[in-house]
Amino acid sequence: MVATDIDMTGSAIDPEDPVFALHRGGKMEISATVPLRDAADLSMSYTPGVALVCEAIHTDPEVAHEYTWVSNTVAVVTDGTAVLGLGDIGPAASMPVMEGKAVLFKQFGGVDAIPIALDTTDVDEIVETVARLAPSFGGINLEDISAPRCFEIERRLIERLDIPVFHDDQHGTAVVTLAALINAVRLTERDMQHLKVVISGAGAAGVAITKILHAAGVRRIQVIDRSGVIHPGREGLNEAKQWLADQTAEWARPGTIAEAMSGADVYIGVSGGTVPEEALAGMAPDAIIFAMANPNPEVHPEVAQRYARVVATGRSDFPNQINNVLVFPGIFRGALDVRATGISEAMKLAAATAIADLVGDDLTEAYVIPSPFDPRVAQAVARAVTDTARREGLARRPY
Amino acid sequence: MVATDIDMTGSAIDPEDPVFALHRGGKMEISATVPLRDAADLSMSYTPGVALVCEAIHTDPEVAHEYTWVSNTVAVVTDGTAVLGLGDIGPAASMPVMEGKAVLFKQFGGVDAIPIALDTTDVDEIVETVARLAPSFGGINLEDISAPRCFEIERRLIERLDIPVFHDDQHGTAVVTLAALINAVRLTERDMQHLKVVISGAGAAGVAITKILHAAGVRRIQVIDRSGVIHPGREGLNEAKQWLADQTAEWARPGTIAEAMSGADVYIGVSGGTVPEEALAGMAPDAIIFAMANPNPEVHPEVAQRYARVVATGRSDFPNQINNVLVFPGIFRGALDVRATGISEAMKLAAATAIADLVGDDLTEAYVIPSPFDPRVAQAVARAVTDTARREGLARRPY
Repeated sequence: MVATDIDMTGSAIDPEDPVFALHRGGKMEISATVPLRDAADLSMSYTPGVALVCEAIHTDPEVAHEYTWVSNTVAVVTDGTAVLGLGDIGPAASMPVMEGKAVLFKQFGGVDAIPIALDTTDVDEIVETVARLAPSFGGINLEDISAPRCFEIERRLIERLDIPVFHDDQHGTAVVTLAALINAVRLTERDMQHLKVVISGAGAAGVAITKILHAAGVRRIQVIDRSGVIHPGREGLNEAKQWLADQTAEWARPGTIAEAMSGADVYIGVSGGTVPEEALAGMAPDAIIFAMANPNPEVHPEVAQRYARVVATGRSDFPNQINNVLVFPGIFRGALDVRATGISEAMKLAAATAIADLVGDDLTEAYVIPSPFDPRVAQAVARAVTDTARREGLARRPY
Repeated sequence: MVATDIDMTGSAIDPEDPVFALHRGGKMEISATVPLRDAADLSMSYTPGVALVCEAIHTDPEVAHEYTWVSNTVAVVTDGTAVLGLGDIGPAASMPVMEGKAVLFKQFGGVDAIPIALDTTDVDEIVETVARLAPSFGGINLEDISAPRCFEIERRLIERLDIPVFHDDQHGTAVVTLAALINAVRLTERDMQHLKVVISGAGAAGVAITKILHAAGVRRIQVIDRSGVIHPGREGLNEAKQWLADQTAEWARPGTIAEAMSGADVYIGVSGGTVPEEALAGMAPDAIIFAMANPNPEVHPEVAQRYARVVATGRSDFPNQINNVLVFPGIFRGALDVRATGISEAMKLAAATAIADLVGDDLTEAYVIPSPFDPRVAQAVARAVTDTARREGLARRPY
């Protein structure tokens, strides 16, 4: 820092830091899409004209989807308990991330997203609050809510609401991870059925990745947390970890991380921790390493490269960035376009396949996943979601 | 209607109706105010750069006001129970009005307003829900919530939150009514202390107008509801009407509307009903009639003209439109600019005076209140609010 600017309450912010300069005043705004030049405009957009539209919706609630912005909106809802790698920093401090998410929704998916940071961490209160907000939004994106509360919150909101509810830290991460894995498996001439996968991290992402890999046909998975491998014989597992233990019972067994990774084809890090080099050394030939912790990968990609054929991270400054932004804008674009009642497992699998397929014949060790700036991505994901929604009968707008 | 378009569920919408054409897809959208062209942009607006801002806010919550959009946002919150003259049409059908309000906030005040229509009408639930949303917004504009629930909801939220909470149907209406009355009183060479005022309507607007007129020095007020004059001897008054009875005890007495209006200087209609012509005939010379029901005034202005020197309505197609849009954008613009902890009675009075003063030497019977499109209005109201907030010690941003 070359200069500091002391604010009212005394904390130091560097005004020359480009990040702070960029964030001044926030990152988004509301714009009218209708003219408001004179009394005639006002009488159409507001009273008395607006009453016509209100009455039409009151008569037939379906009308709201064509004549309000609700059909294109998503609430980005957090309680600030699991923000990036920063953890439980509270709702106010989470807002820059929620705003960032909102602008990505618009940029990549054309979705109008509103950051909603809640002043409660109570599961019942979060569920009630979001359910009461639902008439204002076309979908709910849950964000940065800590595990295991995030699982119950999402489950209860999905049960209660007829609009899509999607916890991005779970499913966005799972979908983009599967997309990259589909191509890494293709490149190394493996198949999902015989793949041995070690997942480090049993939080939101670890649980959702386990679920989607299982749905994609992977049978041999071990999930590691701070206490080692999660397996059916382990004591004191919470509900989510018990589910993980049951789901991975075929291959999971007590042991160290090095033992778990001995002969493994794939390492997926979503832990925020590190992985010992000797554990990587025991992996199968042509190993696949996704070290996705941000900003510090579980292993530096240059080190990982020594033990693996395909290496990916969550960072934009290394090859193969596994980034949720490839997923959530297209998922919600598609879901909103057909007014899907929810985001099914089949939609997530279809989205992963659609992302993977965009790489096509350009597939190499350094290109298993498209760039977040590949303009084809959101459209391909949206189409996969709408097609699947129609097939499954979850599309309320069938045309 | 020249043509009809049958929608999916069978209700008829006229696609050539300009109001419906205008409302298609809603009236507002989110726009990013930061560039998102490449990975470098992404790394500043989102991960990893955004973490710097989150950490700074976590260390010092004051930082949020400079580096998020929260400081410029207002939630426009309704439960859909008292929407325009339509009544209890529910949250979904209220959205066109809330969107309209949001675009007016932006157009006239530069405020980013978010429509929030709640799926509950329970007072406790509304208070809890809005309180939990508070970290995401710089202010709360309550809208179209039915009386008497609106009074308790506003009171409890003001007690609980340190950001401005403002029920526009009460205070916006009261401020703009007082502004028009200040000039009508000036024109007819009266004074507030000796004014006799009859208010028709004891809902949100009637209560708030009574309160602000009292604060402005008016001592003789009678408020009429469907059962006649509200007076201390009347049985079965709810809390709000009991307050009205106590507040107007000096002049209010049992009687018909014609008796109440006999010799009155001012009639203010916020009832949605009608006023009998014979009652108007009994008013004092140079009477003042504000027939503000929308879209149908309590008396047509051409009829009112026979009995009054100054006539105003809520409509844009007659002279002297008394419209809240003169108030709420400037009120919140000023409150947000100084991060006021609330909207005080003094701020409301100052706002009314500022609006009245803009008419200046142009004051005539047909021009007692500026046009909603007068570009000086929001700025003048905002300045009145910021000056008053500083004077009262309610400005957290004192510069």
